[in-house]
Amino acid sequence: MKKLLILLTLWGLLFADTEFAEPKPSIDNPRLIVFPITQGDDESINHVLSSANNVMKFYGPENVQIAIICYSKGIRTLLKKEKKIAVRVRSLQTYDVEFIACGNTMRTLKIKPEDLIEDVEIVTAGIVELVERDLKGWIYIRP
Amino acid sequence: MKKLLILLTLWGLLFADTEFAEPKPSIDNPRLIVFPITQGDDESINHVLSSANNVMKFYGPENVQIAIICYSKGIRTLLKKEKKIAVRVRSLQTYDVEFIACGNTMRTLKIKPEDLIEDVEIVTAGIVELVERDLKGWIYIRP
Amino acid sequence: MKKLLILLTLWGLLFADTEFAEPKPSIDNPRLIVFPITQGDDESINHVLSSANNVMKFYGPENVQIAIICYSKGIRTLLKKEKKIAVRVRSLQTYDVEFIACGNTMRTLKIKPEDLIEDVEIVTAGIVELVERDLKGWIYIRP
Repeated sequence: MKKLLILLTLWGLLFADTEFAEPKPSIDNPRLIVFPITQGDDESINHVLSSANNVMKFYGPENVQIAIICYSKGIRTLLKKEKKIAVRVRSLQTYDVEFIACGNTMRTLKIKPEDLIEDVEIVTAGIVELVERDLKGWIYIRP
Repeated sequence: MKKLLILLTLWGLLFADTEFAEPKPSIDNPRLIVFPITQGDDESINHVLSSANNVMKFYGPENVQIAIICYSKGIRTLLKKEKKIAVRVRSLQTYDVEFIACGNTMRTLKIKPEDLIEDVEIVTAGIVELVERDLKGWIYIRP
Repeated sequence: MKKLLILLTLWGLLFADTEFAEPKPSIDNPRLIVFPITQGDDESINHVLSSANNVMKFYGPENVQIAIICYSKGIRTLLKKEKKIAVRVRSLQTYDVEFIACGNTMRTLKIKPEDLIEDVEIVTAGIVELVERDLKGWIYIRP
């Protein structure tokens, strides 16, 4: 470790990990984070799902609440028939990650409620959900 | 409706629409929302314009103020010669949606004020406008 | 100038530059702005670096602090071997722009600390850094 520190210093690199804002995250004061998924390709979807995983690993699942809002082409994330993605979504659901579908998108793309995987909430407008969560103190990050 | 609810329950789906943050949106306390447009393809531009429409429909035009900041390739949204897009922009302007052009982008892309459609504001830097609106309590969402 | 104003008025155009939120930016109260870089193509990277430049020019370097968090494919911004980009990064560093690398990305893409240009901070998770900066009052904009 000492050797590593010396090397890092020689390279002029700093490993100074993220400092928490106050109040620090805890069970009583979990971080509230909302991610949108707006694109429908595997890479974009997996990027957001992996980001949710990384964030949960960092804080500890009890110290963070994550909501993922899927709209526009991102609605593909929630389709039952997309079996590979559904496995990842269900795994995150077991950690209480919320998945939310945009009703406007569903109407436009002719997606029915029964096309979605289970335990997904449907709201009228995904973007409105983002706005209202922001006003309730959720941190909106586009991964 | 009852049948639908039973079906939704059977599918394990929840239709629990967005709950408003306090204070609720009203004429005296409208939601303030700012969208950027940064890409110049039809799909990206139309996506943001449709999002503005959906948001206005949800809240009611009197309960929300929307500003759309166009910079980088998104400046195409505001070009007079883009007749199809201009029709949509003008329609949103009748609902008092603000459209704002980035002066830095205009200089870089050699766009003159007279190339823009009417009633567009020009600011020095689109991103600075986003920053200052955020500090004034506007909600910044990238649709 | 008068002629220009008359012309602008004739075109129905408004040049009403960004109004500062209170308190106005100053040395004692600089604007705190955090940008992510998540894509690895030249255009996306240069767009964010130019945005940082424009923002600094507008406020004056003493009235703004900028942090740029690089993760996912955006980590390319910080690679020593990308000589052209590195020149731009180093130039921004001389104005105290902070550059931060995501440790999760580095592990996934097998990037070592010594692959990064000098004076870059490494944090465990880029997105967590964004969340915590947001909670500390930094303005998060995705250029």
